[in-house]
Amino acid sequence: MALCDYSTFRVSPVSSHLFRVSHHRSSSSLARLPSVVRCSYGSQQLKTLAIDPSPVVESLTTFAPATVANLGPAFDILGCAVDGIGDKITLRVDPDVTPGHITISDITGAKLSLNPFHNCAGIAAIAVMRMLGVRKVGLSMSLEKGLPLGSGLGSSAASAAAAAVAVNEIFGRKLSEADLILAGLESETKVSGYHADNIAPAIAGGFVLIRSYDPLELIPLKFPADKNLFFVLVSPEFEAPTKKMRAVLPAEVGMKDLAANCSQVAALVKAVIEGDVKLLGSAMSADVVVEPRRIILIPGMVAVKRAALEAGAFGCTISGAGPTAVAVTDDEAAGMEIGAHMVEAFWKEGNLKATATVRRLDREGARLCSK
Amino acid sequence: MALCDYSTFRVSPVSSHLFRVSHHRSSSSLARLPSVVRCSYGSQQLKTLAIDPSPVVESLTTFAPATVANLGPAFDILGCAVDGIGDKITLRVDPDVTPGHITISDITGAKLSLNPFHNCAGIAAIAVMRMLGVRKVGLSMSLEKGLPLGSGLGSSAASAAAAAVAVNEIFGRKLSEADLILAGLESETKVSGYHADNIAPAIAGGFVLIRSYDPLELIPLKFPADKNLFFVLVSPEFEAPTKKMRAVLPAEVGMKDLAANCSQVAALVKAVIEGDVKLLGSAMSADVVVEPRRIILIPGMVAVKRAALEAGAFGCTISGAGPTAVAVTDDEAAGMEIGAHMVEAFWKEGNLKATATVRRLDREGARLCSK
Repeated sequence: MALCDYSTFRVSPVSSHLFRVSHHRSSSSLARLPSVVRCSYGSQQLKTLAIDPSPVVESLTTFAPATVANLGPAFDILGCAVDGIGDKITLRVDPDVTPGHITISDITGAKLSLNPFHNCAGIAAIAVMRMLGVRKVGLSMSLEKGLPLGSGLGSSAASAAAAAVAVNEIFGRKLSEADLILAGLESETKVSGYHADNIAPAIAGGFVLIRSYDPLELIPLKFPADKNLFFVLVSPEFEAPTKKMRAVLPAEVGMKDLAANCSQVAALVKAVIEGDVKLLGSAMSADVVVEPRRIILIPGMVAVKRAALEAGAFGCTISGAGPTAVAVTDDEAAGMEIGAHMVEAFWKEGNLKATATVRRLDREGARLCSK
Repeated sequence: MALCDYSTFRVSPVSSHLFRVSHHRSSSSLARLPSVVRCSYGSQQLKTLAIDPSPVVESLTTFAPATVANLGPAFDILGCAVDGIGDKITLRVDPDVTPGHITISDITGAKLSLNPFHNCAGIAAIAVMRMLGVRKVGLSMSLEKGLPLGSGLGSSAASAAAAAVAVNEIFGRKLSEADLILAGLESETKVSGYHADNIAPAIAGGFVLIRSYDPLELIPLKFPADKNLFFVLVSPEFEAPTKKMRAVLPAEVGMKDLAANCSQVAALVKAVIEGDVKLLGSAMSADVVVEPRRIILIPGMVAVKRAALEAGAFGCTISGAGPTAVAVTDDEAAGMEIGAHMVEAFWKEGNLKATATVRRLDREGARLCSK
């Protein structure tokens, strides 16, 4: 959420296991992720301001970007946001809705439940309303799905992020990014499992390292502003078999594989911080644990990866749990060429139609579109 | 070896699996590690210049620093050099030695074989002589061990590094740091196993990531010049049971531990590159795979770690395979206080005498002392 510059943060322990973010900010600025964020989540307790705030506008629209999780060897611990594709939420103060409640008026772009308790956007919105202690107004929202479901692009996280930010914005930004991530994580946990590597970058933008889950600790990794990074996202018309994708994960890995993945993650982090896209690509391509087991479950993916690299991509892997393939490059035109080769490989080797898009790194995360 | 600035490097593939470092350099400069170094080593083949060079001086002395390998979660993949303690080699052109050969005239500070084929300094020196194709002069060297054997401070690597650099220097620096690391790795392989996390920083200085072993690929991680980093090294009078230390390593680790260590390595790399000593310390302390199994084999070490943290250290773990404990801080005086508490804990809880020393990060690596 790049609505403001970084504020001054202090992370202070309030008990031995519970850390909260305190911050000083100007009245209009949103509290962005500090360099390290530790949050209590093990007990499912969200921060509760319970201030029953008044809305500052009648309606607004937010956008949250797609995200690429895992990035090869960084399984379950790293994700990043990609610009220009994502989900939108339009949120309104609605006198027809029971105060303290929220309804979903309509959803375009996907068939999803309108029951807010069974919808990732609804769950995140309710979590934020609970944190704020909203009691005196009712809300309604409409969801515009820009991301296909089950594509490996963080579709549920984008909806949750857009909704969490929308509720926070309509009440005047009382909560920090860290709080919103916790709200979004509540949604992710119910919908797709307890993992923060989509929701954290969907809200904060850029690359976010999930350093630990208990307590949840997030570390933003800043990709240099003066460097170019493009993601070539190629989504085939194929439903990745989620159960199989999970089932092929090994229960254990050998020490050699542990060292291999740790060292590739190390290279990946250096590459991100220093803006070294070539190193980023080669580290992203070098997972020896998860990708080799999953790549064979997506028809044509082995050939797609090879095609991407042969066409000049610096690296290629599976986005999230797939089926989208993600390649990286530092040049947009080269990215389009790479994408064409990947689409061709999906067709030739996997017998799958696929579409390609070339996107920049999203450095902002979920954001307000208009008031 | 910080005898010069970085030269211009190009890493070019000469076959699909074999990379060599080519470089342009001024006549007096030593080729330092470029940002990524890939070397062939799988086949034990070292680069061979075979130029039978003439010595440029009659004698010289080199120094190579102690090194801390593993750094907690970065098991087998990361090491760094610490300033002011290490081994020295004095190397002479010796007409009494058969041309093309080297002898070890004397060793002070430790009881070690004078047979160069059975001595880590000798093995590294011979490897460099072979790479250079030395045939027309004989050499003799004396070794001054400043590091105790089996202490977890890279004692064998320091001897090998000092020797490799000495031979390269006496013949006018024909080889690069990467070449010397390969020569040193030949020594390490014969003496203490195939691992580069001591020899690479002993030669190159600073932090070096071993990205892969086959092919060997090294990535220097530059700690910022304007930040302070002190290592508190506390060595007890205890012989770490090497076989046991190795035997307690698990054959396999669970996916949760894989993610945990990968994420701590990620935090460690960010901390090193950004000079964040607090984060470095906490990441270094957070290994869930190796340290928990080894720490109980060193009497008092659990208490020593606790004492270091309670005394204000940012982190503490086992240096290499121990028994030395290493803590980090950004203040020298604080380091001495921390060291005193650690020594006390070794005595009280482990019934072991120990000595503490506080050392800066060594940013130079093995170097010439005098000509």
